[in-house]
Amino acid sequence: MTSTDSALRDALFGLMAYRELTTFERLSSDARFSPRLADRAELARLAVTEFEHFELVCAELVAAGRDPQEAMEPFVEHIDGLHERTRPGDWYESLMKAYVLDAVAADVYRVLGVRIGVHADRVARRIQELDAQAEWLTGRLKADLDDERLRSRLALWGRRLMGEALTRSRSLLATTEFGTLLTADEEKELFATLVRHHAQRMSALGLTA
Amino acid sequence: MTSTDSALRDALFGLMAYRELTTFERLSSDARFSPRLADRAELARLAVTEFEHFELVCAELVAAGRDPQEAMEPFVEHIDGLHERTRPGDWYESLMKAYVLDAVAADVYRVLGVRIGVHADRVARRIQELDAQAEWLTGRLKADLDDERLRSRLALWGRRLMGEALTRSRSLLATTEFGTLLTADEEKELFATLVRHHAQRMSALGLTA
Repeated sequence: MTSTDSALRDALFGLMAYRELTTFERLSSDARFSPRLADRAELARLAVTEFEHFELVCAELVAAGRDPQEAMEPFVEHIDGLHERTRPGDWYESLMKAYVLDAVAADVYRVLGVRIGVHADRVARRIQELDAQAEWLTGRLKADLDDERLRSRLALWGRRLMGEALTRSRSLLATTEFGTLLTADEEKELFATLVRHHAQRMSALGLTA
Repeated sequence: MTSTDSALRDALFGLMAYRELTTFERLSSDARFSPRLADRAELARLAVTEFEHFELVCAELVAAGRDPQEAMEPFVEHIDGLHERTRPGDWYESLMKAYVLDAVAADVYRVLGVRIGVHADRVARRIQELDAQAEWLTGRLKADLDDERLRSRLALWGRRLMGEALTRSRSLLATTEFGTLLTADEEKELFATLVRHHAQRMSALGLTA
């Protein structure tokens, strides 16, 4: 790895670390408002998975001689902004947020990872986990989606989440260390992929994207 | 074990489970307000330890053929009430809350566990973990306690926490399945121990109980 490559790798790990830490915090706060005690535990488990991954990524940064706090800082504003603009109103919106945004994160990690050349390790494992999680979330959400009002509320919420995620991803790619990483074509390709995958995930729930 | 013993054991596990789940939720929500990114991760780690224990206790309940949700229900009001009346105003108060209330919990678990006869297993391990955690918390809190205003604020907060914990423990022992478990003398002994240990912990921080 050249020093540019390793700086980019550390930036990707910083992004992953901060996103996972904040997702942990938000999900576990939301857990309290779950309909049943069992649901609280499920959302909490999801949150803990995010934290465990945060710790693994931090350990890799430390092993590379980097301070995780420093590596995370460039992403604080982006990620905090995304969370602020996507505060779930209840437990279902919280699940949906995890379902939509984790998937966007997995796609962004994947593309940046391939481009930087770290796809084979930590990033790939994380993407696999996120995919498994999405499968669980699909099942959990579908179980309650015969309620028509909930369906239309979540369809709307899904569009809102995706809109915010796209805006934030665009500004992330424009203003951080990843700024010059993707060519204009690659960026277009990434956004097209994000939108296509989102539509697939919504129809997996029987919702319109 | 007689069936009364195993019902009491399950009640103790239900109490532990619900306390740990809610402590996880509260601590991890509080984590967001930590002064530095590194502190957020520390508080989050503490929260995750509570969750891991919640999962272990639930697994024991399930193995005993009990529904964890049912086992937790008798304690929801008590524990929620305690959390509602002890909302930390900042990160330090959050640490202090963990320091004071986890220690009370460890003492209550210990006494109930001995009385029910389950001290040797899960309960004892949890108490050990809580003790180790208290050691870490002592170090973390002491590091910032040369600030005189913080000292007096936390001393006051510590007294408030202890007051609430005693009130809630008393009503827990009076109104739940543990109602007839301790004799009047044993209960007096328990409260004396709680107060004595609290004073020791406060002086470990250089604060007056």
